[in-house]
Amino acid sequence: MDRIPILQLGKTLLVTIQVDLQDQTALALQDDLAAKIEATGAHGVLIDISAMEIVDSFIGRMLAGISGIARVLDATTVVVGMQPAVAITLVELGLSLHGVRTALNVERGMKVLDAAARERAIDAEEQSDREDAEDGADA
Amino acid sequence: MDRIPILQLGKTLLVTIQVDLQDQTALALQDDLAAKIEATGAHGVLIDISAMEIVDSFIGRMLAGISGIARVLDATTVVVGMQPAVAITLVELGLSLHGVRTALNVERGMKVLDAAARERAIDAEEQSDREDAEDGADA
Repeated sequence: MDRIPILQLGKTLLVTIQVDLQDQTALALQDDLAAKIEATGAHGVLIDISAMEIVDSFIGRMLAGISGIARVLDATTVVVGMQPAVAITLVELGLSLHGVRTALNVERGMKVLDAAARERAIDAEEQSDREDAEDGADA
Repeated sequence: MDRIPILQLGKTLLVTIQVDLQDQTALALQDDLAAKIEATGAHGVLIDISAMEIVDSFIGRMLAGISGIARVLDATTVVVGMQPAVAITLVELGLSLHGVRTALNVERGMKVLDAAARERAIDAEEQSDREDAEDGADA
């Protein structure tokens, strides 16, 4: 069984999908990614699909699944590098990649992840401020 | 014919080799990388081979070839993620990856590239100082 390698770049995991995804490979990728997010504490997952010439409903579900799993583990997923022809076909088929964020290429995907990390930091700060204020009110 | 995608991360190009490399794919990768280095002005190439279970003399030559081409185009190549078993087999077979720099993983490979970029900057500065001194002597 092929396994798709997951590369770590700081707090980001990078996956390049080059082979036609079979069910087993896709399931293995989901498992591996979940394990790697947990092991590394990664906050972002970039999935490059520039080599894919076909994205069907199975792949769409797989991407949405990975994105959902990552979200529960507090990581943002961005799918990058979709070929224009693939985007056209997706829309023509009425397949929306629901819940999946996309970006033109890896660099823009990194920027999306940076922005998400900043939002997360601000949310955490506000949360902590609110808690401080509540503690103050209690006292 | 499969083409291996080349991802750009700033001034670094990243290639993940996941499939068994055939002659045609390997040649296409060399061509694509050379074109991409020229197009992007990249100073570093990272080749991740963590998915490869066999590195034979053909792959060794291909890696050395890419490294040589990149060097001529003023880019440093680092091969990362080699599996321990592959390293053991390489040494047992007497195959040395001559002229190929290696690092444990992508992050360490990035550090090697950063160090190479710094050296390059210092060299350029010394060169420019020397030229200034020569200009001074001429005047």
